[in-house]
Parts: sequence; structure tokens; C-alpha cells
Amino acid sequence: MATVDRWLLPDGIEEVLPPEAARIEVARRQVLDLFQRWGYEFVVTPHIEYLESLLTGAGQDLDLRTFKVTDPLSGRQMGFRADITPQVARIDAHTLRREGPSRLCYAGSVLHAQPRALTTSRSPIQLGAELYGDASPASDVEVISLLVDTLELSAVPDVHMDLGHVGIYRGLARAAELSGEVEQQLFDALQRKALDEIDALTAELPEHLARMLRALGELCGSRDVLDLAQACLVDAPDEVHGALDELVAIADALELRHPELPLYFDLGELRGYHYHTGVVFAAFVPGVGYAIAQGGRYDDIGADFGRARPATGFSTDLKTLVTLGQMELGEAPRGIWAPDHHDLYLWQAVQRLRREGARVVQALPGQPLSDAVAADCDRQLVLQDGRWQVMPLAH
Amino acid sequence: MATVDRWLLPDGIEEVLPPEAARIEVARRQVLDLFQRWGYEFVVTPHIEYLESLLTGAGQDLDLRTFKVTDPLSGRQMGFRADITPQVARIDAHTLRREGPSRLCYAGSVLHAQPRALTTSRSPIQLGAELYGDASPASDVEVISLLVDTLELSAVPDVHMDLGHVGIYRGLARAAELSGEVEQQLFDALQRKALDEIDALTAELPEHLARMLRALGELCGSRDVLDLAQACLVDAPDEVHGALDELVAIADALELRHPELPLYFDLGELRGYHYHTGVVFAAFVPGVGYAIAQGGRYDDIGADFGRARPATGFSTDLKTLVTLGQMELGEAPRGIWAPDHHDLYLWQAVQRLRREGARVVQALPGQPLSDAVAADCDRQLVLQDGRWQVMPLAH
Repeated sequence: MATVDRWLLPDGIEEVLPPEAARIEVARRQVLDLFQRWGYEFVVTPHIEYLESLLTGAGQDLDLRTFKVTDPLSGRQMGFRADITPQVARIDAHTLRREGPSRLCYAGSVLHAQPRALTTSRSPIQLGAELYGDASPASDVEVISLLVDTLELSAVPDVHMDLGHVGIYRGLARAAELSGEVEQQLFDALQRKALDEIDALTAELPEHLARMLRALGELCGSRDVLDLAQACLVDAPDEVHGALDELVAIADALELRHPELPLYFDLGELRGYHYHTGVVFAAFVPGVGYAIAQGGRYDDIGADFGRARPATGFSTDLKTLVTLGQMELGEAPRGIWAPDHHDLYLWQAVQRLRREGARVVQALPGQPLSDAVAADCDRQLVLQDGRWQVMPLAH
Repeated sequence: MATVDRWLLPDGIEEVLPPEAARIEVARRQVLDLFQRWGYEFVVTPHIEYLESLLTGAGQDLDLRTFKVTDPLSGRQMGFRADITPQVARIDAHTLRREGPSRLCYAGSVLHAQPRALTTSRSPIQLGAELYGDASPASDVEVISLLVDTLELSAVPDVHMDLGHVGIYRGLARAAELSGEVEQQLFDALQRKALDEIDALTAELPEHLARMLRALGELCGSRDVLDLAQACLVDAPDEVHGALDELVAIADALELRHPELPLYFDLGELRGYHYHTGVVFAAFVPGVGYAIAQGGRYDDIGADFGRARPATGFSTDLKTLVTLGQMELGEAPRGIWAPDHHDLYLWQAVQRLRREGARVVQALPGQPLSDAVAADCDRQLVLQDGRWQVMPLAH
């Protein structure tokens, strides 16, 4: 391998340089502080775990996205986390074992063996918040509101929120007693809104179920869709009505709290169908072909760790927020240049300034004063009247 | 795999729970802010890279510690970073390509396929600072001083610093024209201070070289060792004298700056010999059998990326600093409990308090007021005189 190749990073794997890295760090702190003010407690999950733990409750998607290695200590298969949500669910279900509701949040890199889409990163910095132990729509409203606040803090413009509920399709599929294979084919067709295929796949079903399943492919749009759905799905089983009522309750609460936020409903959109059990949501902005944040309810995930708990939450990518947003990250104050000098009093002056919060860069042997500007300094330490004093940088 | 096993984490792989995770986060910010005040710029390196990049300039140790996978996109071998230093060297040498000195710092998880020692973590959070572009001892003094400041900030008690210089052994080995194999055997023997083996391995050498190589095994202790070395190594080649002079200059500067810090010298200790080119140092505390921070000069590393630059720096582990230190992390202020209520005015009051920096936890349906204490709240929002007001939590 030639020298010239050695530095090439794999596709979809990025490094972050100054000053962008400092912006990422400031944004990370601001978002984590926001989560903290909402009562979410920070956890740090491992980058690597036994594969069974990582893939619990997750679909085949996550399996394909996960890098795998054998643990030389145990001989067991491990994976690099491609999603932090299942890890946090494990912490809630097994480690914390709290009785009441639990709010947890996290921020950390994940790795994707395969990118989610052609242009997406394989190394996003996943940020998220999860609420365990409450099955009511109040929890869904809380996490969606926190996501809205996170996007507002990040100053991402023109966000709209997509909302759906997997209980609607699931209830209809169950009533229609679809085979696993047909359920999957119909699911795929609904995602693509392939109305012809939907018609063909539902041709053999009782007329009222076929009609309702076909309707899902067209029940998308603004708030009116929910009223339309109430009418279209009037013959549906109770489970479907329950799901629709939850979606209405969540929509009402969000409209009250965030009247300026465009909501878009899609009853055939089943993001994370294998994983989710209730409301699903995703935030979009114009010109970006994928969701910039997403989440939903996934009540069953803890069961694999010995304790089923209701759960809802969201995740997003810090790098995406910083790239798309115009977050106020504050300007780093300019620094003070110290000469290359072994004087103990200079050292003490430098350290005092640093303790007071100033950035002080000390010249290295032979370094010209002109380098002070490159080091973003606008002042310098000068020995005057027997004391080291901060003076403006001479131009 | 039974449910009961699913949550087990691999040996040496940890998760960090509340409230410890919050302490880790506060410590991380404090250390990164310290690095920033010293003029070090933050970079974020990838968790995964092509193996050739990751292992450049590194010894076999790092190769054995690195988890490897094949990139499904390129078919090339990749590794999970087991050390961030070579990545930062790549950024300096290839990406930034600055002319003058460059100061970079980082903080992030690394993964070790094999632990460094039986009891050490396989998933430390590596924190470090690197100074490129200056070959003088002033740079070594700066990074060691920054390490001392980092340990002081972390309030790790009873630190002592070990100092050595690989140029001393390297110069003598070169003068003795040792074969690669014998050089390695002698190196191993010196690490173990196996004086009999050292005698045997040097038996065939010219007397003055044998004497000096044997002396290295005994040249360890307090500052006097440097004077003793000047005398013992008087017949050594210039290269050795140059190395010893550097070590003396560094020791002098450190004693001036940190008179309270115990320095310990060991001229046979060759930590990271394959990697380092000059001074090497490590911080120890009583009762911990491994270095809690280490570093040194490694001037040649950038060459593999197309540009050789002088380089010196250190790294440590955030979790170790927090565990061993008594850092002042501040107490998180107690929170405000909000009732489960859909009132828009309550929502606005909650959001206003959060914007002002308060932590507000909203009750979920059916949650008793007694849960407020478990959520670490000492106040509550109460509707009084038609306004939501913050009141003490009734006991």
C-alpha cells in the first residue's frame, strides 16, 4: 500500500477537524444539558457487546448493519453497536430495575457495516432519550416534545414531523389472519405505496378488511387524515381503534404545545415495524432525503432481558444537527500568546490566567510572534516594570 | 442462550450508569476545557479505519490489541481503534498539513481485544494531547506539565512521575552493533531488570559498552541518577549524551514548575520503545499496578503518512481519573416536579423554567407525588391564584 493511500478513510467513515470538532463538542454539551433539564439521566453504554444482547428485539436490518468479531477471551460472537437504543433498554430492564418510570439519555458513536442510505454516514454520533415504565400517550408526547426542543435548540430550519402508528396495520393484519409471508409483502407494498400490489395482495380477503388495508396506502397527509381514518376504519377491530385514538391524543397534545410545527400523518408508513409497537415518528427537513431524527414506542424490548416494560424514545445524529442547524455555539474567546521563556514568574502568570479561564498558548523555541495570530491570539504576555502583563498583540 | 445470560457484558467491557455517568461527563468537560485553555484543539477521530492506518508506527502490541473486521464495502481489512494517538498523527501529517507547531487533543472510547493487564478495562475512554512540529525539550516539558495539570484537576492523590529516554539505550545498542534479535532480548531483560541475563547478553561486547549497557539496569531512582549517569556514560557516543542532556533539561524545567511532584528516573525503562524516539514518561499512584497516564516523544510517526514531524504527547483514561481522583464535579441542583396535567399554561411554565436552567420532571399519568423524591426533586409546580408557581415539595 503506497503512502498516498494510507490516510484514506473508508467510505462513510469521517474524522472531524478543528474548528468543526469544537462546534460538535459544544452542541453535544448543549443537547445533553437539555436532556438533563427534562429529567433524563445520562448513561454510557459499551461500544461492543455480545451479539445476542445487541440484536435483542431488533430486526434483520440491525443485524446487517452490525460489524461482528469473535471475543478472544470468551470465544463468543460480539458486535459493535449500530444502535444504542437496545443497550439502554437492557440497562433499564436488567441493571437499574426501577419500579417507576425511568428517563435515560445517551450520546455516542455507532458504526454501520452498511450505510442506511447511499449518502449517509457509517459513523454517526447517536444522541437519544428513552422513557421507560409508562404506556400512556403522555410519554410519547413527552419524547416527541423533547425531540422538537432538541431540533429547536439545534436551530434546524423547516422541520416537519411525520407520525404513524404500527398498531393500525398490525391490528388489520391480525384480523385478516395474513400469513407471515403475505404480511411482509403487504408491508413492503405499503411502504412503497404500490397501490396495484396492495390490491393484488388483499384480493382474497373479506371485503371490509381489504378495503381498510387498501385505505392505509392512501391515508397520508395533514391532520384531516385522522378524521378520514376514523371514518374509513369504522369496521376495524378494537385494537385498531385504540391505536387511532392514541394517535389522535398525541396529535392533539403536540398541536397544543407546538402550534408552529407542521405535522404530517401516514398510516401506511411503518418505520421500524419489527421493532415498534405503537406510535412512530420521524423528523424531516426539505432537501434531505432521510429522516434527521426518528423514534417511537417499543414496549416489548425489555422482555428479552427478563422484564417487559413500556418504552418510548427517539434518536438523532449529532453531526447531522450541527451540519443542518444554525446552533448558537458561542465564539471561543481569542487567546493570549506567551513568549518562549523559562522564567518561573512567566509560568506562574500563564497558569493564573488559565485558571481564570483564559486560553494561553506558549511559544516554542524559535517560533515567531507572527504565529500568535495563527494560534488565534489577540493579546500577549510582556515583561514590563518587572511583571508579566497582558498587552494587546502589536500588529 | 438463556434470558439470564443475555445481559452479561464481556470481560473488561463496562457500562456506566447514573449517577456515575454524569460524573464522567462533567470530568470529560473539565479536562477538555483544560486542554483548550492550554491551546490544544479538539479533534474527533473515527472508531474504525483501514488497519494499515491504525497500526502505522505502532508495535506488535497494538496489532494484538486491535479488533479486526473486513469492510463489506471495500473488502479491505479494518480495525477498531485501540489507540487514538496514531489517528491524530495522521490528521497532523496528512489532513491539517500546518507549517508551524500544532496542538491537538481528543477524548473517546478505544477497544482492546486483549486487556493490557489482567485487571484493566478493554474499553477505556482515552483522553490525550499531542504537540507536533517542535523537536525541543520545551515541547516535552509542556505536555508533561499539561499531564500534571490534568492529574491535579482530577485530584488524583500521591502521583509520581517516571521519566526515561529511549535514546540512551538505542544509542548504546547502535554503538554495540547488536543484532535485532539480541537487541530485543537485551531490551526484555532490561525491562525485567534481570541483571544476570543482561550480563550474559553483553558478555561478548567491548568492555566499555558492556559496562554501560549493564549500568542501565541499575540507573533508576531519584534525581541523583542523572548525575550518576553522566559519570557512568562518559564514554558513550554523542547520541547518548544528547539524550541524557535532554532528560536533564526536562527534569530541571519540571522541578522548577512542579517542585512538589516526585520525579523518578529509570534509564533502563523503555516503555513503548518501538514507538518512541525520545523522552518517555508515565504517572503512577500507590496501590495501582499500572501507569495511570503515559506518553513520550515519537518523532517518526508522521513519515508513514507522507510527512515526518516531531511529535510528543500523552494519554490517560477518563474512567481511571474519575475512579482514582476526588475531582470536584459540583452537585447537580435538585429538580422541580410538575404534575401530570395537559394545561398549556403548565407546559409554558415548565419550558420557561427549563430555559432558565432548572431541571423539571413531569409526572406521568397515575404517578404519585412521592416519586418526586426518587426523581431528586425538592420543589413542585402548583396552581395557585391562577398561576403555576414553584413551591417547596410538601413532606
